[in-house]
Amino acid sequence: MNPGDRVRVDREDRTYEGVVLPSSTDDHLVVKLEGGYNVGVDRDEAAVEVLAEDVYEIDGTDSMGADEDDEATSEIEFDEELPTISLISTGGTIASTVDYRTGAVTAQFDAEDVLRAVPDLAGRANYRGRVVANILSENMEPPIWQELAEAVHEEIEAGADGVVVMHGTDTMQYSAAALAFMLETPVPIVFTGSQRSADRPSSDNVMNAVSAVEAAKSDCAEVLVCMHGSESDDVCALHRGTRVRKNHTSRRDAFETVGAEPLGTVDYETEEIEFHRDYQQRGATDLEIEPELEEGVELLKFTPGMDPQFLDVVEGSAGLIIEGTGLGHVHTDLIPRIEELIDDGTTVVMTSQCLEGRVCDRVYDTGRDLLDAGVIEAGDTLPGTAKVKLMWALANSENVEEAMSTSLAGELQERSVPWE
Amino acid sequence: MNPGDRVRVDREDRTYEGVVLPSSTDDHLVVKLEGGYNVGVDRDEAAVEVLAEDVYEIDGTDSMGADEDDEATSEIEFDEELPTISLISTGGTIASTVDYRTGAVTAQFDAEDVLRAVPDLAGRANYRGRVVANILSENMEPPIWQELAEAVHEEIEAGADGVVVMHGTDTMQYSAAALAFMLETPVPIVFTGSQRSADRPSSDNVMNAVSAVEAAKSDCAEVLVCMHGSESDDVCALHRGTRVRKNHTSRRDAFETVGAEPLGTVDYETEEIEFHRDYQQRGATDLEIEPELEEGVELLKFTPGMDPQFLDVVEGSAGLIIEGTGLGHVHTDLIPRIEELIDDGTTVVMTSQCLEGRVCDRVYDTGRDLLDAGVIEAGDTLPGTAKVKLMWALANSENVEEAMSTSLAGELQERSVPWE
Repeated sequence: MNPGDRVRVDREDRTYEGVVLPSSTDDHLVVKLEGGYNVGVDRDEAAVEVLAEDVYEIDGTDSMGADEDDEATSEIEFDEELPTISLISTGGTIASTVDYRTGAVTAQFDAEDVLRAVPDLAGRANYRGRVVANILSENMEPPIWQELAEAVHEEIEAGADGVVVMHGTDTMQYSAAALAFMLETPVPIVFTGSQRSADRPSSDNVMNAVSAVEAAKSDCAEVLVCMHGSESDDVCALHRGTRVRKNHTSRRDAFETVGAEPLGTVDYETEEIEFHRDYQQRGATDLEIEPELEEGVELLKFTPGMDPQFLDVVEGSAGLIIEGTGLGHVHTDLIPRIEELIDDGTTVVMTSQCLEGRVCDRVYDTGRDLLDAGVIEAGDTLPGTAKVKLMWALANSENVEEAMSTSLAGELQERSVPWE
Repeated sequence: MNPGDRVRVDREDRTYEGVVLPSSTDDHLVVKLEGGYNVGVDRDEAAVEVLAEDVYEIDGTDSMGADEDDEATSEIEFDEELPTISLISTGGTIASTVDYRTGAVTAQFDAEDVLRAVPDLAGRANYRGRVVANILSENMEPPIWQELAEAVHEEIEAGADGVVVMHGTDTMQYSAAALAFMLETPVPIVFTGSQRSADRPSSDNVMNAVSAVEAAKSDCAEVLVCMHGSESDDVCALHRGTRVRKNHTSRRDAFETVGAEPLGTVDYETEEIEFHRDYQQRGATDLEIEPELEEGVELLKFTPGMDPQFLDVVEGSAGLIIEGTGLGHVHTDLIPRIEELIDDGTTVVMTSQCLEGRVCDRVYDTGRDLLDAGVIEAGDTLPGTAKVKLMWALANSENVEEAMSTSLAGELQERSVPWE
């Protein structure tokens, strides 16, 4: 049989009808059912009969959204024994795949492409697919975080038992943090991506996608990042979305939890998931969304010799994150200008370019002067996460200073988070 | 005997006369000789006679510069068997000490304070002291890097066998990088500092200062940073000045070599120095200084949602370091503006906020567009080091693009450095 053929699949307990997708291999078929579900079929465990050849034109660019209205002939929409995982695509290397007809790398990415690129996903879940964006992640912007949060919210409302978000690695940490602040979730929301494209022998796309789906089926109802946990193909690490950082430009295990061990790991061979720290359990909270953001928040990294005019750009902005030195310092000449900004209504929050450890502006004169000027300390919140959080807090929190000093989604490690 | 007494010290092979300093303990005397040298005396190995009591008023703030014209009575200026180490102070926690008369923390730091605070330095070297600045290191500025380089140059010209620069930890990495580009040195130049002040039981000031002096006596003629190498008091790590980063706000072992092991270690107990990688040997190069800097260089960290107006501030600047995402990206909407800057004469250099790994703008479209716009890649040079290097290269290099793509002082690890 060939991709595009309509087939009937007989398994021990049920029967499907659908269209064979190009990702199918000798061992696995991926069959597209109606209503946005794709089902993986292990050939060893099923009898497959071709009903009609080439009935379905697969052009590599069609969406497989749940709303899609294909010619429905099958009444079986999914394997009730498997959880339903929503695959949301935003673009990036993991969703790139060589077009199965032309050999060219497709510019159109959707969740179906991921199933084509990763046949190993078959049989692990019923999949719902959805394309929120198709961008390079350096072009990710706050309004797309909002669209993404809305899409995830809708998918969970529609019954997804977990969500996998495929995202370019460059700004994955910012988007994961955004969703962590915008959403209260009763199911896992797992970001994954790929540092090496699928056409490279060392590609990490299969293992990351498979591990992300396993994590999305797990008991951990948090916003996670699932990427290679070592240079080998043995484990993926599960990072809390607000504490993770891409710490290497090219390594597959580029993502690290800053200031702690990762929350957990997925063993690729055994598929066993282990959590090393406490986390929010599946179902512990109701689904909620607060997607509003104040976009007028900037981040400035202080370095010796910095032009003070950078502070002028911030004039009139709602918020400013400073990446200070050490415990949270800047050149003392900048403090009066920062105080003016605060007096004019800009919320100024201090973080450290050290990345690890808390800021503490009570130790040295410069810090005390910054506190006197009204600067808020962000504890050990990572600067990028602090920017996202301040955008969210300015739009949603009654007391922004308190919000920035409190852990809302695990971003502030050294104080207690709600579930620890 | 008491601090301020004039004494004669008889050792097996020589005799000194000088004034006892307050750092003296039962085991060690520190005796201030004429001409800027302080000598440590092990009481077990010397007979000491008081010549006159309280002849020298020590007020805790006097300089002990080599040019100082004290009442000279002794002809013996230093122990010829010991190397001469120049201690240069710029301020910071390591040089802070509780005033021995008033109990207050002195605001005036000089090298003599360090000898008072760290009696263990006695007997390891003849010391020359010099104060270049007395500032919090967040206030360090490029003109002071130049003064510091000039001072180090003068000390080495005057015969110092090694130089220890005491510096606040907040911006130590930037200053160390500056000196690494400005100076060719035949002797070690070792930056050290303290993460915890001397009045705290966990202070790292003694071990760091002692280890830095040992490193300054070593065979490694590079600009190094010597700070705690672990959370214990067992080893100090020796970091190449262009590759080091303060990676924790408060830990004593906050400093790390990025992307490699430290160059070496100093065992605090055995005083043994081990180097794990190749380095420039003592005497391998002549002393040279090129302290010119182009100060109009800015650093911008790109984050999602960044206000493009930050690029307007750079208009007319000589140089810009971008901390891009991943392999070296920014939002593609910014590229035309960056191209305009380059066309107007600004040198724009790409680094990565990942910190580890090289930028490589040949992989994705965004990167290729940046290269087409004229952006220069800085390999795996750390963003802060790249800023310092570009300031230096714009003032000293005939071909800035080539300079930024070449390792001048070990800052570009994955290509060969001159001595590796």
